[in-house]
Amino acid sequence: MNAFQAMKDAAGPGGWIDDPALLEPHLNDWRGRKRGRAELLLRPATTDQLAAIVRLAAQHRIGLVPQGGNTSLCGASVPEPEGGAVIVSTTRMRRVRQVDAADHSLVVEAGVTLSEVHAAAEAADRMFPLSLGAKGTATVGGLISTNAGGVQVLRYGTMRALTLGIEAVLPDGSVLDQLSALRKDNTGYDVKQLLIGAEGTLGFVTAAALKLVARPRAVATALAGLASPAAALALLDRLRGAVGDQVDSFELMPRTGFDLVFAQMPEVRDPFGAAHPWYALVELTSPRDGDPLAEALESALAAAIEAGDVADAVFAASETQRAALWALREGIPPAERAEGPSVKHDVSVPVARMPAFIAEATPAIERGWPGARVLAFGHLGDGNVHFNARPPLGVDYEVFRENGPAITRLVNDITVAHGGSISAEHGIGTLKRDELVRLGDPAKLSAMRAIKVALDPLGIMNPGKLL
Amino acid sequence: MNAFQAMKDAAGPGGWIDDPALLEPHLNDWRGRKRGRAELLLRPATTDQLAAIVRLAAQHRIGLVPQGGNTSLCGASVPEPEGGAVIVSTTRMRRVRQVDAADHSLVVEAGVTLSEVHAAAEAADRMFPLSLGAKGTATVGGLISTNAGGVQVLRYGTMRALTLGIEAVLPDGSVLDQLSALRKDNTGYDVKQLLIGAEGTLGFVTAAALKLVARPRAVATALAGLASPAAALALLDRLRGAVGDQVDSFELMPRTGFDLVFAQMPEVRDPFGAAHPWYALVELTSPRDGDPLAEALESALAAAIEAGDVADAVFAASETQRAALWALREGIPPAERAEGPSVKHDVSVPVARMPAFIAEATPAIERGWPGARVLAFGHLGDGNVHFNARPPLGVDYEVFRENGPAITRLVNDITVAHGGSISAEHGIGTLKRDELVRLGDPAKLSAMRAIKVALDPLGIMNPGKLL
Repeated sequence: MNAFQAMKDAAGPGGWIDDPALLEPHLNDWRGRKRGRAELLLRPATTDQLAAIVRLAAQHRIGLVPQGGNTSLCGASVPEPEGGAVIVSTTRMRRVRQVDAADHSLVVEAGVTLSEVHAAAEAADRMFPLSLGAKGTATVGGLISTNAGGVQVLRYGTMRALTLGIEAVLPDGSVLDQLSALRKDNTGYDVKQLLIGAEGTLGFVTAAALKLVARPRAVATALAGLASPAAALALLDRLRGAVGDQVDSFELMPRTGFDLVFAQMPEVRDPFGAAHPWYALVELTSPRDGDPLAEALESALAAAIEAGDVADAVFAASETQRAALWALREGIPPAERAEGPSVKHDVSVPVARMPAFIAEATPAIERGWPGARVLAFGHLGDGNVHFNARPPLGVDYEVFRENGPAITRLVNDITVAHGGSISAEHGIGTLKRDELVRLGDPAKLSAMRAIKVALDPLGIMNPGKLL
Repeated sequence: MNAFQAMKDAAGPGGWIDDPALLEPHLNDWRGRKRGRAELLLRPATTDQLAAIVRLAAQHRIGLVPQGGNTSLCGASVPEPEGGAVIVSTTRMRRVRQVDAADHSLVVEAGVTLSEVHAAAEAADRMFPLSLGAKGTATVGGLISTNAGGVQVLRYGTMRALTLGIEAVLPDGSVLDQLSALRKDNTGYDVKQLLIGAEGTLGFVTAAALKLVARPRAVATALAGLASPAAALALLDRLRGAVGDQVDSFELMPRTGFDLVFAQMPEVRDPFGAAHPWYALVELTSPRDGDPLAEALESALAAAIEAGDVADAVFAASETQRAALWALREGIPPAERAEGPSVKHDVSVPVARMPAFIAEATPAIERGWPGARVLAFGHLGDGNVHFNARPPLGVDYEVFRENGPAITRLVNDITVAHGGSISAEHGIGTLKRDELVRLGDPAKLSAMRAIKVALDPLGIMNPGKLL
C-alpha cells in the first residue's frame, strides 16, 4: 500500500479529495498571488486521525500543509509550486466542544470559523473580543497559527492573549494536551506559545481553549475628522487619559481610503459636510449597564476640538449609525481590492512613532516612484498600519508590480529604523521570508532554526514556509 | 588563566564575590529549605559582560545559576548541593532604561525590583499592574523567569501578559534583542515566550519592556463574610455579571487565616462583629475619574446578601480602610510563616471547580493525617489557591515534614483530577521536578527536553532545575 493510500485510510471515509477540480481552490491563496501544487488533500475528522496522518507523513517523509479557511495573506496556507506535499484541511474538525460561561472560556476545534466562535460566545452572554474581515471563513487553527490581530487588540490583545490552551499534533505524531483554560499554570516551558504564530511549521493546532470576556453593555462610537496622524495620536492620548483601557478601538484612515469606499460602495455615505485629510474611528465600551461613556467621549472630543487636534466629529446615536461609521473603516480593504492590486505592507512601530513613520515613508515612495499612491490605514492604537503603494493612475498593476520588491525593502527599512516590525499581524509565510532573513534579529533566527530542527527534525511541517 | 579568573575579569571591577561569608545568603533559598554550594558569584553590570561570562561558561562547561532577588519559592534561584556551578546575580543591572508614558511601556534591566518598577510607572502617571508580597526584593528578571502572578491576574494577567519585549543572553552567549514594546509583531516563533517561565534554564533575561496601564482613578473595595467557597464563587459570578472586567481582585480567605493574622499581628482588627467561615476580598477599579464603582459594588453585595450568598459585608470608605482590609489578606502568608512551616502547595483549577477542589482536598488531608490543619487561601478569581497543610496542634514541623511527599502527591492527584495545574504561579524549580515528571503531559515534557537540548546543548543554564 502506498503512502498516499495509507493516509487516505487514516483520514477515514470522506476524508480526502484528489479530484483536480475540487483541489483547485485549495491551491490558490486568498489574494490570488500564489498558486501551489498538490495531488491530495486530507480532511481528518478527529485529532486521532490527524495524529495517524502525521505519523505516516513522518514515516514516508511527506510534507504536510495545514489549511484552515485559506485566508492567509502571506502564502502560508497553500502548498509550494514544487509539489510533493499533502494539504491537510481542518474542514471537518468543527465541534464546539465546550462553552463555560462562568469560567469565561470555550473550547473549539481548529476548523471552527471566527464567526462561529462569536456566535457561541454570544449564546452564552459573553464575547470573543477578536474580529477581522475574513471572520466568516478564517478558522481558529489559522487564527492561532498566525497570531491574528484585528480591530480590538488595543484593549484585548492578539490571538496569543486570548488563547488559554491548545491541543496540537506535534511533528512526531504525539498529541500535546494543553487544552485547559487555566489562568495560571507555571509547569515548565509554555510550549503552546511556540505553536501560536508558527504558521503551521511546528505542528497542527487541533483545538483551543479561548478566553471570553463580558459583553459590552455600553458602547460609544465616534468618527473624528483630523488634519494629520499626529493629531490622531494626540486624540488617542487624550482619550486614554480620560478613560484608560475603555478605549476599545482606535482606527486611523486617510481621505483617499474614504474616496475608494465611496467610489466602490455607493451605499456608504460621508457623515461630514466637508472632507478631512484624515479620520479616526473611536469606540469606547464598558461592561457596565448604563455607564455614561457617550458623555465621556463627547467631552473628550469637545476638548480635542477646542485644543485644535480635531476639526469635526460625529457620534453614533444608534446601532445603525454605529454600523454606518464602521462601514467606512471596514469598506477600505474590499474597496481597495476592487480597484486593483497594490504593493501591500503590514507594519508596526511603537504607537508614538506612527506619525513620524507615515511622514517619512509616504514621501519616500512618492519620490522613488512618481505617481504611486500611498494608502495608509489601520490600527493606530496598536501602532499597526497597513501601508500600501497603489500604481499611478492609469498604470496597470502588472506593469507596476516589478517595483514591488524595491518598494517593500524601502518600507521595511524605514519600519526597522523606527524600531518596528515588518509583519505586525499577517505573518511571514513565503512572501516575507527573504526580508525576515535580511532584517531579523540573528540570535532570534538562529534560535528559531534550532527549535524547528528540535521539534520537526524531518522537516515535514509546512515545508518552505517561514524559515 | 583559569576559567573562574577569566569570568571574574569579564564581570569587571567589583563584579564578583568569593568570600564564603558574603556568599552565604546567596546559597540559601527564601523559605530556608534548601542550601546549595558555590564558590563564586558574578555580578556583571552590563549585558555585554554577561554575554562574555556565558561564552566562557560554555567554553569551560561551567554551570550558571541566575539569581535575582532570590525570593523563588521552589528552589530555582540557588545552586545545587553538589556545587561546581557559578551564581550570576543581576544585582548590578539596575537601570530603568526608558519610560514612555504615551506608549504605556517602560524598559528596565533584570535587577530592578518590582517596587522600583511600580515607582517608575507611578512617576509617569501609569501603573504596572502586578504585585506580590516580595515586591521590594523580587526582580524583573526573576519575575519573568517564573511568570509571576499575584493579586491582579484576574484583570491584567500574569507576567507573560505584561511582558512586551525581552533582551536575553542565550546559552551560546548570543544576545536576543527582542526588547521592543510593539503590540503586534508576527515575525516567526515568539522565542521570548520560552524564556518567560523557563526559570533560567534557557538563558538570562537581561532586560524587559513591560506594559503599563492607566492608573485607576476610581477604586471600590469590600470584604464579604461568607459560608463557603461556593458562596464566594456565586458572588464572583454576580460581580462579573454586573461590572465585567472591572473586577480587579477577588481573594478568598478562611477564618483560620484571619485567626493566624490576629494572633501574629495585634494591630490588624476584625472589621466584623461576628466570625464567618470564609471571606472574600473584592476590589473594583476604573480608569475614569468619578466612575461610581462604589454604588455598583454596594448594589451587587446587597443583592448577594438578599440571595443568601453573602452573610455580611464591609466597605472601605477611605484609603486607610482599604489598606486595613488588604492587611487581612496580605497578613496571611507572613502570619503563617511566623507560626511555623507547613507543607505548601500552589495549585490552580478551572475557576468554577475551586469549591469542589477545596471540598474534596480538605477532608482528604484531615482523614489521612488526623489533626493536620488545612489553610486554603488565595486568588479565587484566577482559580489559584495556596493550599497548605499545617502540623496538628502541638506537633513539631520537623516531625510532621516526613508526611510532606505523601500529602503533596494526594493534593496534586486531586488537582489533576479537577483539570488543574500543580504549579500555578511558583514554578517547578527543584521542589516539584519529580511531580512534574509523574503528572505532566508526556508530549509537553518531551518537547521541553528537545527545546532544552536545542538551545542549551551543553546544559550550562541553571543545571538541575525544572527538567
